[in-house]
Amino acid sequence: MRAVVYQGPKEVAIEDVDEPELQHPNDIVIDITTTAICGSDLHMYEGRTAAEEGIVFGHENMGIVEEVGDGVSTLEEGDRVVMPFNVACGFCRNCENGYTGFCTNVNPGFAGGAYGYVAMGPYQGGQAEKLRVPYADFNALKLPEGDEHEDSFSLLADIFPTGWHGTELANLSPGESVAIFGAGPVGLMAAYSAKIKGAAEIYVVDRVESRLDLAEEHCDATAINFEDSDPVEQIKQEHGDMVDKGVDAVGYQAIDPETDPSDDAYDPARENPAVVLNQLIQVVRPTGELGIPGLYVPSDPGAPDEMAAQGRLGIDFGKLFEKGLKLGTGQCNVKQYNRELRDLIIEGRADPSFVVSHRVGLDEAPEMYEKFDKREEGVTKVLLEP
Amino acid sequence: MRAVVYQGPKEVAIEDVDEPELQHPNDIVIDITTTAICGSDLHMYEGRTAAEEGIVFGHENMGIVEEVGDGVSTLEEGDRVVMPFNVACGFCRNCENGYTGFCTNVNPGFAGGAYGYVAMGPYQGGQAEKLRVPYADFNALKLPEGDEHEDSFSLLADIFPTGWHGTELANLSPGESVAIFGAGPVGLMAAYSAKIKGAAEIYVVDRVESRLDLAEEHCDATAINFEDSDPVEQIKQEHGDMVDKGVDAVGYQAIDPETDPSDDAYDPARENPAVVLNQLIQVVRPTGELGIPGLYVPSDPGAPDEMAAQGRLGIDFGKLFEKGLKLGTGQCNVKQYNRELRDLIIEGRADPSFVVSHRVGLDEAPEMYEKFDKREEGVTKVLLEP
Amino acid sequence: MRAVVYQGPKEVAIEDVDEPELQHPNDIVIDITTTAICGSDLHMYEGRTAAEEGIVFGHENMGIVEEVGDGVSTLEEGDRVVMPFNVACGFCRNCENGYTGFCTNVNPGFAGGAYGYVAMGPYQGGQAEKLRVPYADFNALKLPEGDEHEDSFSLLADIFPTGWHGTELANLSPGESVAIFGAGPVGLMAAYSAKIKGAAEIYVVDRVESRLDLAEEHCDATAINFEDSDPVEQIKQEHGDMVDKGVDAVGYQAIDPETDPSDDAYDPARENPAVVLNQLIQVVRPTGELGIPGLYVPSDPGAPDEMAAQGRLGIDFGKLFEKGLKLGTGQCNVKQYNRELRDLIIEGRADPSFVVSHRVGLDEAPEMYEKFDKREEGVTKVLLEP
Amino acid sequence: MRAVVYQGPKEVAIEDVDEPELQHPNDIVIDITTTAICGSDLHMYEGRTAAEEGIVFGHENMGIVEEVGDGVSTLEEGDRVVMPFNVACGFCRNCENGYTGFCTNVNPGFAGGAYGYVAMGPYQGGQAEKLRVPYADFNALKLPEGDEHEDSFSLLADIFPTGWHGTELANLSPGESVAIFGAGPVGLMAAYSAKIKGAAEIYVVDRVESRLDLAEEHCDATAINFEDSDPVEQIKQEHGDMVDKGVDAVGYQAIDPETDPSDDAYDPARENPAVVLNQLIQVVRPTGELGIPGLYVPSDPGAPDEMAAQGRLGIDFGKLFEKGLKLGTGQCNVKQYNRELRDLIIEGRADPSFVVSHRVGLDEAPEMYEKFDKREEGVTKVLLEP
Repeated sequence: MRAVVYQGPKEVAIEDVDEPELQHPNDIVIDITTTAICGSDLHMYEGRTAAEEGIVFGHENMGIVEEVGDGVSTLEEGDRVVMPFNVACGFCRNCENGYTGFCTNVNPGFAGGAYGYVAMGPYQGGQAEKLRVPYADFNALKLPEGDEHEDSFSLLADIFPTGWHGTELANLSPGESVAIFGAGPVGLMAAYSAKIKGAAEIYVVDRVESRLDLAEEHCDATAINFEDSDPVEQIKQEHGDMVDKGVDAVGYQAIDPETDPSDDAYDPARENPAVVLNQLIQVVRPTGELGIPGLYVPSDPGAPDEMAAQGRLGIDFGKLFEKGLKLGTGQCNVKQYNRELRDLIIEGRADPSFVVSHRVGLDEAPEMYEKFDKREEGVTKVLLEP
Repeated sequence: MRAVVYQGPKEVAIEDVDEPELQHPNDIVIDITTTAICGSDLHMYEGRTAAEEGIVFGHENMGIVEEVGDGVSTLEEGDRVVMPFNVACGFCRNCENGYTGFCTNVNPGFAGGAYGYVAMGPYQGGQAEKLRVPYADFNALKLPEGDEHEDSFSLLADIFPTGWHGTELANLSPGESVAIFGAGPVGLMAAYSAKIKGAAEIYVVDRVESRLDLAEEHCDATAINFEDSDPVEQIKQEHGDMVDKGVDAVGYQAIDPETDPSDDAYDPARENPAVVLNQLIQVVRPTGELGIPGLYVPSDPGAPDEMAAQGRLGIDFGKLFEKGLKLGTGQCNVKQYNRELRDLIIEGRADPSFVVSHRVGLDEAPEMYEKFDKREEGVTKVLLEP
Repeated sequence: MRAVVYQGPKEVAIEDVDEPELQHPNDIVIDITTTAICGSDLHMYEGRTAAEEGIVFGHENMGIVEEVGDGVSTLEEGDRVVMPFNVACGFCRNCENGYTGFCTNVNPGFAGGAYGYVAMGPYQGGQAEKLRVPYADFNALKLPEGDEHEDSFSLLADIFPTGWHGTELANLSPGESVAIFGAGPVGLMAAYSAKIKGAAEIYVVDRVESRLDLAEEHCDATAINFEDSDPVEQIKQEHGDMVDKGVDAVGYQAIDPETDPSDDAYDPARENPAVVLNQLIQVVRPTGELGIPGLYVPSDPGAPDEMAAQGRLGIDFGKLFEKGLKLGTGQCNVKQYNRELRDLIIEGRADPSFVVSHRVGLDEAPEMYEKFDKREEGVTKVLLEP
Repeated sequence: MRAVVYQGPKEVAIEDVDEPELQHPNDIVIDITTTAICGSDLHMYEGRTAAEEGIVFGHENMGIVEEVGDGVSTLEEGDRVVMPFNVACGFCRNCENGYTGFCTNVNPGFAGGAYGYVAMGPYQGGQAEKLRVPYADFNALKLPEGDEHEDSFSLLADIFPTGWHGTELANLSPGESVAIFGAGPVGLMAAYSAKIKGAAEIYVVDRVESRLDLAEEHCDATAINFEDSDPVEQIKQEHGDMVDKGVDAVGYQAIDPETDPSDDAYDPARENPAVVLNQLIQVVRPTGELGIPGLYVPSDPGAPDEMAAQGRLGIDFGKLFEKGLKLGTGQCNVKQYNRELRDLIIEGRADPSFVVSHRVGLDEAPEMYEKFDKREEGVTKVLLEP
C-alpha cells in the first residue's frame, strides 16, 4: 500500500510499504478514510528529533474497520472509527487512572505510545491506506455510520481533545478569563473549548493574522498579535487585570517577541523556548492555573543554547511561587475527552472543522508538509484522504 | 511591651515597643502565650530580603483574647485562640475561594498578608507580649480552654498546616508513595501529614541526622541522607521505582549534593536553588504531582548567579513535560486546614509537638535565632513564651 | 417606607413600615432598585408554611448603597450591589467551606438565613424601599455603575445561581445529556446553565407551553410536556437511552402526570411530592447524578398524606442503589456562583433576562402574587421596582 | 471439581461440577487458594432473591493462574492474583470512567456483572477449586509471590474496598467525624478505612458485642449499641453535635431499634428497610454527606410491606433537603481502590485480617453458611480454602 515515509530532514515521500496485518487477538485493521498532518509531525520533519528515515508518519487516524481479531468484543467489519493518537492497553495503572497518554505496557521502557512517531513504540503511522490498531476495543471510538462530520470527527484523534486538555489542565471554569498562547490548530481548539465551556473572556496570542481571525470568528476570542507589542501588557490592558487561567499551545519552539521579525515565515533564530511559559507566569493572576499541552522535550538538538538542548529552561519560578500558581503538563489523554466531544459534534453543539484549511489526496502530502512547515498564511490544518 | 526587633543582618534584640490597640471594629488584641521562630524568619534574619531594621518579627502566634472590637461577633475576652500566619479579610475573591494566603484586601498592591514579615503588610509580629488581630472572627481559630496541647496548637499557626499543604498540593492519596525533600520543621510536618493521610511509603531527604531520626521515629518514614549519595538513586533503589508524589519542603536555599560538605553547619556556597525541583522531576513517576510549599522568591540578593537573583531558575521542563507532571506552589492557606488539624490534636490522633526542640522565654530569642540559623543539630523548632 | 406585607393565606398588602437602620458596624442599608417575587414566596403566600402575618417578603434584592457601617471595608455610598438571598456571616465553618446557604451564625439554632422568609432569621425582606444588609462586605456583590443589565443582574440574587446550582449538584459536564424537571424560573435557569456549560442534550419537562417555549428558544432544550404522556418514556424515546444527569427544579409541590388535568391552572389535588424524584431515578442512567435544588420540606401542613406531612416520601431507593446514583440537595449557596455569573452577563455571554415576564411598581405586587400563584400562562418571573 | 452449590432457601451443598475452561482469548483460569462467604451471599441463601438452585456461589476469589488465553498480555502461569467481585470489560464507558461495578458489556441488559451471583451474568462463582476470569488483564490484580498476607489480600476482592467505598461515597476527609452503621465485615472495613484516612472521630453502630469490640480494638472507634438506646442520640451525646459524615453498611435488612429484641440472633420481623437511612439523615450535620454501600434492592419478596417489596422506602427527604445533604450509593467499583489497598497491606500499613474469624476447608461451607446467616457471636468473616 502507499504511505507517507520520512526520508530525512525536510523530506517525505509517498512509497509502497507492506500492508499491516493482525498480530494479536485484540487487533483490528482499518481502511483509513481521513488522516491528518500534525504540528508535532513537523518536529520530526525538521530533523529536531531522533527520527530515522523509513518511518511512516501519521497519528491522527480515522477509517472503516476492515479486519477484526478473535479477541475483539465490540467492533465489527464496516464500523466507522476514530483512534486517539495515543496507543494504550487499557489495563495498566496509568490507563486505569485515565492517563492513556502514559500507558506503561505498549512501549516498554517508556510511559506512552503513539502511531508513527519516533520513540513512541513500534506502531506504524496512518498516513497510509491501512492501519493496525492494537487493543482495539479500548482504542477505537465508534462513530455514526456514513460520512457526516468527517472533518470534525477526524479532529477527535488529537487536536480537538488536545486543545480541550489545555483548558482542563488549567482547570478552566465557566465565567473565568483565559489567555491562550498560540493560534495554531491546538491553540484554536483550546480557544474553541474555552468558548464551549462558558469562559467569560478568551485572549488568543499569535502573529499569523489568518489564525487570529479564526480565533475571533469562531471562538469569540480577543486576538493579540505579539508582533505589535508585549502580549502580556496587551492582555492586561484589554482585560483590566491579569487573567484567571492560561494555556500554552506553543511549546518549546516559541518565538521571542523581543526578536526582530524576519522575512522567513518561520525563523528558528527567533526561538526562545521558555518565553511563553514566562509570559504566562506574568499574565495569570495569583492563585491561577496554567495548562501546558504545548510540547517540551528533554533533548533538542536544534536548541538555541546548551541548557535548552537538554530541556532545561530558565523559568521565573520565584514569581510563579509568589503567585501560588499551579501548572499541569503533558500530552493529552485523548480517551478522557473524545466521547463527549464526539457527542457535541453529533448534536451540532460543536463544529471544530473551521480549523481545517486543506483536504487533499495522500499524494499531495509532501507538498503540504512543506507549506505547513513554513506556517504559511492560510495553512492551518491539513487532512489527507488516502 | 517587649518584642523581638530586627536590627539588621544576623541580629535581633529584645526592645520595648508600643502596645497594639484596636484600630477597627473587627479587631481584637491578644496576649501572646506562645509564638514561634520560623524558618522563613531566617530569610529576613540573614539579610536575604528587603526587610528593614525595626520590624517586629513573629507570624506564628497563639494566645488569649484581651480586647474585642465592636464588630466582632464570635469572640470574647478570655478565649484561647491561634492565628494563621496569613492575615486575610474573608470576603475578597481569593478568600472566598479558600486562598486566604492571597487575600487582596489586607496588603494593597499584593496578594497576601502576614504578621511581622517584610512586604506582607502593616501587621506587627507576635514575638512580643501582645498582638493586634484584624478581621478577628475570620482570622482567629478558637481552642479549648486551659493549657493542654499548647505546643501542638501553636504549630497550627504555620508549620503543621504548611506541611499538610505540601501533601495537598501534591494531591497525595492513601496508598501512594511520596518523597519529601527537607526534614526541617515543614518537611517533618509534611511527612507526618503523609502518615496521617495513609501514604504507603514516605521518603524524607535531608543531611541532618537528628532531623532524619525524627522522620523515622514519628512519621514512619525512610530516611535518605543526601550527603551519602544521590538521593534520587537512593529512593529509586529503596522503592524499586519512581515514587507517586513529591514534596519540596526546602525552597530556594537548597544545598546541592554534588558540592562538598564544609565545616560550617550551613554554607551558602553550596546552594543551588533549582536542585530540589530537578531532583523531584527525576524521582516522581510519569503522571505524578509535586507539592511545593518550600519558598521561592522573585528576587534574591544573595543568589549564586544573576539569573537566580531574579528568581529565574534552570528547570528540567522537557523532562517534566514528558512525564506529564503537575505541580502546585505557594504559601499555605492556613484556614483551609487548621480546623481539622486542631480536631485531630484534640482527639489525640495527631501530636505534632515532637518537632518542638525548645520552649524558652522571649529574652532568649536572640540566642535561639543564632542557633536555628546555623541549623545546629538538635535545634528543630523553637517556641517563645513571652 | 412602603413594603409588601403578608396578611395571611393568599393575601399580601402594601403597608408603611419602619425604615431599616444600621444595627452593627458591618451593616449597610441600601435603596432597593429591583426586587423579585420568587416561587418560594408562594409557599408562604399559600399558607403552606408557619409564616405569620406581618412579615415583609422579598429575598431577591438589588439596589444602591445608601448608608455604610463603620466596620465595612469595601463598599461606599452609591455602590450598585446585588445580594444573595442567603444571609451569611463569612466566618463560620460552613461559610468558610462555601456553604453560605447553611451559615450557623446568622440564625441561631438553624443552619441558614435569608431575608424576608419564615424561620430564616430576623431579616426583613426587600420587597420594600430599603433593606438592611448584614456582614455587607461578604454579602453584597458589586455591580458596574449605571443601570445596564438591571434585569439580568437582579436574577443573581437567587434564580440564576439556583438553576446553576442544580447543574452543579448533578455535576453536569460538557458533552453530557441532562433532564430538567420544571420550567419555572429555576428550571429555565438550570436549562440555560446547562447550555452555557456545554451540555450535549437538554430535556426540559413541564406542562405550561409558554414556559416550554422559552426553554426551546433560549436554552436549546427539547421540550417535554408531561400532560402528553409519561415524560420518562418521552425522554428515553427522544434520546435513545437514559440520560447522564438529572435536575429537579420542581420540589414537593410536584404534579403527578397520572392524575387528570383540571380546569384550574394549579390544582393541589394533583400533587404527589415524590413523583419527580422517582421520575429522575428512572430516567437517569446507572452511575448518573441528580441535582435537587427544588424545595422539599420537613413539615408540610397541606400535604396529600400523613407521611408526606412530615416530609417523609416514598422513594424508589432500591432502584436508585442498583443504578449507583448520587444525589445532592439543598438551597443554593449563591456566593459560590454569583461572581462568575455576573461576569458572564457583563461580557455578553449570558443574558438570563428572557425569563422576566413582568417589571412593575411595588403597588402592583398584590395583583402579581395572585397571578404568579396561579401559574398563569405568560407569568414567568415578576420584578418589582420600588 | 468440587464447588458450593445452592440448593434452595437455607441450603447449600458441596457438589461435583464441570471445570471451567478458557472461552475467550482474554480469559485465564485460576486455582482458587482462598475464597470467602459474603454477607450478600446470604440474600440468596435466605431466598430473598430470584436465585435458582444450581448456581455456584462465590465472588470473593483469589488464587494462582493456571491457564492463560492467547490475548492475555501481562499474566502468566503461576502468578498469584486476587479478583474484584465485579466482572468488567475495561473498555465500556462506565469502565473507562472507573465505574467497573457498572460495566455495560459483561452482562447484557444490565449495568454490572459479578461471579456467582443471581442476575449478575453467566459467571460461575469461585467457592470451588477453579475459576474462569474474563478480561483477565483488566480483572486480575497481581500479588507478591508466596503466601504472605493471604487473609488480608483475599479481602481485596470485596469487603475491604467496599468498606473503603463507603467512606469515599461520603467524601470522608482527614479530621472529620463519621458515623458508621453496621459492624459486619463491611462496616468494620469502613471504620478501618476511616482510621487509615485520618478521621478524627469514628462511631460504629451495631448490636453484636463481639463486632463492636473489633471496631473499638482495631479501628479506634467508639462503639454504639443500638439495643441500649436511640443510636442517634447516643452519638450526638458522645460527640456533642451531629457528625460530619455517615456510612450505611447495613442496607435494606436493617433492624429497627424500636422493635423488641427477640431470642433469635436474627429476626426478620424486626426489619425496617429505611431505618438506617433515616438515622443517618438525623445524625449527619447540615452540608454533610452519606456514603451508602449497604445493599438496597428494587424488589424484595420478603419485605415487611408492599411498598418496600418494590424497593420504595419512606425516606425523610424534607429533612435531608433542609440540611443540604448529599448521598452516594451503589456497589463498589473494586478496581478504583484495590491497588492502593494492596500496597498498604504490603507495606504493613494496613492489616484488615482482624475481621477474619474462620478459615476452613470447602467442605465446611454448608455449616459456616448456617452460622454466618444467624449472625452468631464470633462469626465475622469466613474464608474457604478449596
